[in-house]
This record gives sequence, structure tokens and C-alpha cells, in this order.
Amino acid sequence: MRGFSLNQATTKHWPLDDLVAGCVDAGVTAVGLWREEVTDYGTEKAGSLVRDAGLTVSSLCRGGFFHEADWYDENRRAIEQAAALGTDTLVLVSGGLPGKSRDLDGARRHVGDAIGALVPDAQAAGVRLAIEPLHPMFCSDRCVVATLGQALDIAAPYPASAVGVVIDTYHLWWDDTVWDGIARAGREGRIASFQLADWITPLPSGVLLGRGLPGTGSVDMRRFARAVREAGYDGHVEVEVFHEEVWSRPGAEVLAEALSGYEAAVS
Amino acid sequence: MRGFSLNQATTKHWPLDDLVAGCVDAGVTAVGLWREEVTDYGTEKAGSLVRDAGLTVSSLCRGGFFHEADWYDENRRAIEQAAALGTDTLVLVSGGLPGKSRDLDGARRHVGDAIGALVPDAQAAGVRLAIEPLHPMFCSDRCVVATLGQALDIAAPYPASAVGVVIDTYHLWWDDTVWDGIARAGREGRIASFQLADWITPLPSGVLLGRGLPGTGSVDMRRFARAVREAGYDGHVEVEVFHEEVWSRPGAEVLAEALSGYEAAVS
Repeated sequence: MRGFSLNQATTKHWPLDDLVAGCVDAGVTAVGLWREEVTDYGTEKAGSLVRDAGLTVSSLCRGGFFHEADWYDENRRAIEQAAALGTDTLVLVSGGLPGKSRDLDGARRHVGDAIGALVPDAQAAGVRLAIEPLHPMFCSDRCVVATLGQALDIAAPYPASAVGVVIDTYHLWWDDTVWDGIARAGREGRIASFQLADWITPLPSGVLLGRGLPGTGSVDMRRFARAVREAGYDGHVEVEVFHEEVWSRPGAEVLAEALSGYEAAVS
Repeated sequence: MRGFSLNQATTKHWPLDDLVAGCVDAGVTAVGLWREEVTDYGTEKAGSLVRDAGLTVSSLCRGGFFHEADWYDENRRAIEQAAALGTDTLVLVSGGLPGKSRDLDGARRHVGDAIGALVPDAQAAGVRLAIEPLHPMFCSDRCVVATLGQALDIAAPYPASAVGVVIDTYHLWWDDTVWDGIARAGREGRIASFQLADWITPLPSGVLLGRGLPGTGSVDMRRFARAVREAGYDGHVEVEVFHEEVWSRPGAEVLAEALSGYEAAVS
């Protein structure tokens, strides 16, 4: 694998200039960026900052949210933004059930159709759409794609160079079919991104900001890293943690812990 | 199906005497009971109360928690208690990872072994062990059995008369393999209990007390009821909701809403 990447969400309140300088200081060569932060900073300016520091952008989070009315235009903008930042990977979180719908099958079909509609734009921009299955606790309001198998089935009709999947330990660790899924994703050439976060309890209200740094929770990180490597993945390994307590600490300190969590996982 | 049953957890603060009287008043003929409440009331006394009122005990919750050191003795007591209450169904929630373990496969194997160890006791008592898969958000701390398929695989080595599974809409609704799983459970004669609760967001801190009464959330209850009926299930349908706001309301009012949620589901 190509080594560690700091996903910007892990150090959410670290200003981008400081984050880039901190990565360079720590010998880190890649970052995963988020659209909101990049847009606030200025996309062109962010691209230059990162490039001038010699960093690779391993992914841009996130497109998707296909339950929203403006999904098509919004995702086209996300593809353009990824291209402008020089990353080949746009992470897609599919979105949940629209309105008060209970039609989960229908929502999943719509995700497949929406991705199909975006493939030509993504190919033209040289950006790969990376479908991220989220933990089933996000199924109603954030991501109807709840397993790796589902993500692979949705990706299947499209070229692997255009549509891949994200393997995030936090979302998939509970699933006993995930090991076969990772092997399948490797065979099909679909692994677009590999992200580490740990499962810790109790979950906070709303459950979004409950992730632990790798090594602090229930996930067998080494098994995941081995499975993804054996599946032939040679990209970056992002650490992507959302947690208020982690966010409240100095960026460089969190970066150091993220890095050592990564090292323990891949050792 | 044999009709509605009020699971006691839905009206947690309703004293058992009042709950039984309330069920009789409402024409409800079955209740699901919980060990703690029954033990506090007195098991023999609770059994007489319910029997004298003409109510069936559709299930006793819960045995399991196999990650705890005293699981064997505790589950034998649970089996005895179920028999004393005159119910043929003991719901098992498997328990989570022991201590700081990350060995999820090992924990799942242990659940299978533990159930195997209890089968003779259950058969002798005329009580069926009903494995309940819980939502994957409970995987680390409450239930390593996260899908219906897993529950069926764990049950497979044992006679269907001794080991069955629980189908609870709240825990399984996100899973696109659940429809095949319900059909399989029917073919294998494993459906021991069917419970209704709805998925509502945002989830509260700790996520345990976040369930909605049937009809208030994202779950397609009618599809579940149809699938379970078509799988040949002819037992009771319990409404089992854990929610602080629901618990704060008068029992009879909650019972009426649970009953109309059930009726909408099975209509």
C-alpha cells in the first residue's frame, strides 16, 4: 500500500495551512480533503497549497446524497472540484430515504441510476466514483448502501476505472461477509479507498461523531489491512475519525496518534 | 398469525397488575415478559396473575449475554423461569465482545457453543431458545449476532424445536438479504418470535432507547408482516419498543397505539 494519508475530518478544526505544514513536518505525504473545507478555503488555492507542499490528495469527500433534489448538479460540481484538486477519487455517500419514504429497494435502485448518470462526467474528468457503504445505523438518513456487497453490486454495471468502492473499517467491521467482499472487490478491481476508524461505545446522540482513532476500539485493524493488501490494493490508507474530543485536541498531536494507529494496523 | 402481543418493555413503567388488567380491557390475549420485572414481582405470582387473566405469555426476554462469566447458570435460571411462566419461547440476546477482545469470529463461535450446551436443559423444560439478531450498532457491547443469516447458521446444528430465531423489524430492516432469510427461516421451521418496532432518528445517546412505535418510522412493516406470514409463521406478533418518551406516557394509551400499529402492519 502507498502509505498513510490524513483525512482532514480527523483534525476538523486544524486550519488547512497548518494541516499541510503539519503533514510535511511529520513526513506525511498524502491528505484526504472535504468539500466544505476546501470550498471555504478556495478550491484553486487549496489545490496549489497541497501541490506546492508535495502532498497527494488521496480522496475528496464527499459526493452522493442522491436523495436530495439537486443531486445531479451538486455531484457534477463535486467531480469538477476533485479534478481541480488533482485527486482521482471522489467518495460517494449515497444518501438516505427521501422524505418519509419507506421504499428502501427503490432508494437503492435510484443510487445505482444516479451513479450511472454521473459516470460519463467522472470519466471525462478522470475522477473515479467511490461508493462508500456506511454502517447500517445510517441507513435511513445518510446512506442506504449498508454493506460492501451492496456497493459492489451497484458498481458492477460500470467500468472499474470509473466506479469503485470505499472500505472503511468503522462501517464494515461487524459484517461476517466482509472478508469475502474485500476479496471480491480486489478481483473486480474496485477498491478505490481504504479508511481506518475504530468502533467505540457508548455511541453519542446522533451517532455521527462516535468514531475512535485506530487502535482504541473493537475493530481488528490488522485483519482489515491484511485483507485489503491481499486483495491487491496499493493505494493510500486514510485515517478518518469524527469525534468531538479528538477534534478538541491539537492537530499535530492527533496526527501523531493517527499515524501510530496506522502503523500498528499495517505492521 | 395468532394475533397481537404486548411486550412488557413497551410500557416499562406500567405495573404488571395494571398491564394485565389493561390487556384484558383492550381484548389483548398475549404478553411478552421480561425477566427483571417478573423477578421483582415474583415469578410464580406473575405466572398465576397472567394465567388467571387468560393471557398467553408469548415470550420471555431475555437469556443470552454469553460474554458474561456466569452465562451457563444464568441461562439455566432463565429457562426455568420461562417454564414457570408457561411460555415456550426464551429470547436470547447473545452478548458482545468479552472484555477488550477484538475476536468477533471467536465470540460468535462461543455463542454457538453456549447455545449447544443449553439445548438439553431447554428441551427438558419444553422451552425453545430463540436467537435474536440485533442491529449491527449493538455488535460490540450487546449482541455479536448481527444478521438473520448468522442467527440461522448458529441455530442450524440443533433441532428446530429446540432453537429458533427472532425476527425483529427494528434490527433487520436495513438488510437486503432479510427477505431471503425470512423465507429460509420459514423453510427451516425456525421462526420462534416476530417483533415490531420502528426505526426513527436521530438516535439517542447510547442508542438503546431509540425505537419508535410501529408506523412512526422508516420500516416497511407490512412487507415484514407479509414475508413472515408467507414463511408460515403462525405465532404472536409482539410490539416491543424501548423509548423514554413512550415510557413516560400512560400504559393504556401506549397499548392502544401499539395495537393500531400492529393492525396497520398485518392488514
